[in-house]
Amino acid sequence: MGARTNTRQRMLHSAVELLRERGAAGVTIDAVLARSDAPRGSVYHHFPGGRAQIMTESLTLAGDTIGAIIEQAAAQNSVVTLRQFGQFWNTLLEQSDFAAGCPVVSVAVGSSPDDEHLQPSVAAIIQRWHTGLVTAIETDGVEPERARRLATMAIAAVEGAVILCRVNRSTAALDDVIDELEVVFTAALPA
Amino acid sequence: MGARTNTRQRMLHSAVELLRERGAAGVTIDAVLARSDAPRGSVYHHFPGGRAQIMTESLTLAGDTIGAIIEQAAAQNSVVTLRQFGQFWNTLLEQSDFAAGCPVVSVAVGSSPDDEHLQPSVAAIIQRWHTGLVTAIETDGVEPERARRLATMAIAAVEGAVILCRVNRSTAALDDVIDELEVVFTAALPA
Repeated sequence: MGARTNTRQRMLHSAVELLRERGAAGVTIDAVLARSDAPRGSVYHHFPGGRAQIMTESLTLAGDTIGAIIEQAAAQNSVVTLRQFGQFWNTLLEQSDFAAGCPVVSVAVGSSPDDEHLQPSVAAIIQRWHTGLVTAIETDGVEPERARRLATMAIAAVEGAVILCRVNRSTAALDDVIDELEVVFTAALPA
Repeated sequence: MGARTNTRQRMLHSAVELLRERGAAGVTIDAVLARSDAPRGSVYHHFPGGRAQIMTESLTLAGDTIGAIIEQAAAQNSVVTLRQFGQFWNTLLEQSDFAAGCPVVSVAVGSSPDDEHLQPSVAAIIQRWHTGLVTAIETDGVEPERARRLATMAIAAVEGAVILCRVNRSTAALDDVIDELEVVFTAALPA
């Protein structure tokens, strides 16, 4: 990867980290430059659309990372998918010492009028996660309507648990939620 | 209620609304004054601690409102508590045309260094909700450790669902989550 790509990627990853830790309001040009150690000229060189482009691309990058985890695990079965999704957040919470949460939720919850343009991307990202999980649950033999409800419940509960983990500085809530969801998923499977 | 109390309460309620809609970063002195239609002098008259005091008091007000709903319903049983908790969010989402979410989650997810002092209050508020729900579930005859896990799952799933509802501009996710949680709660009851 050349120096050009390197700086660009570093800036995007820094923006994702800021989204996770501080929400949309925390992703300022100054904060991205400071964290990625990039020269000021990089902004309009790599992102002619400025902050709005950085926000859109970092949100997409974050959503795709999680989407890919769900889709890869979904090729196995729904409980594996659940556990992988939980493990992803567990690692992120611990590695960041509970400073980082879900960047997609950050944008959904706390965006200013400047970031309203991101809402359709947020909806599309969550829809992709949901579809991946529904596919896994249906493949396990659960009827489509129930599979849809269970996938909604799992995404809601895991995202809520990530918030509780940050608040309590402990992964206990996530562990509890994954355990309870596994009971629910297993009970929903055809005998 | 006198004019003094009136202005003070109006400012606090405006701060709670801003927290719900925009997150902690959206609660600026200017925004509170504009929304509550209060004169600028009101800030240091009613809140000598300035924005920090407004944040602390509005967060407490929001947390207490929800805490009281949970505790009152918990005197009945756990499924009633769940339904009341869901109904509260359903009404808020619809009345705000999906502009408003949970003010406590907003602070948990997107606070800037200025608002770090609020994190212990966020933890205490969520702990209070959790204790209320655990009490209801235990009173229904579920053993303490499972009751604790179910309460965590319910709070996580409902808070996560409120986020999904805002993203999708629909209460469907909350309806699905409450239905699924009711199945889980009912199955956990002693026969």
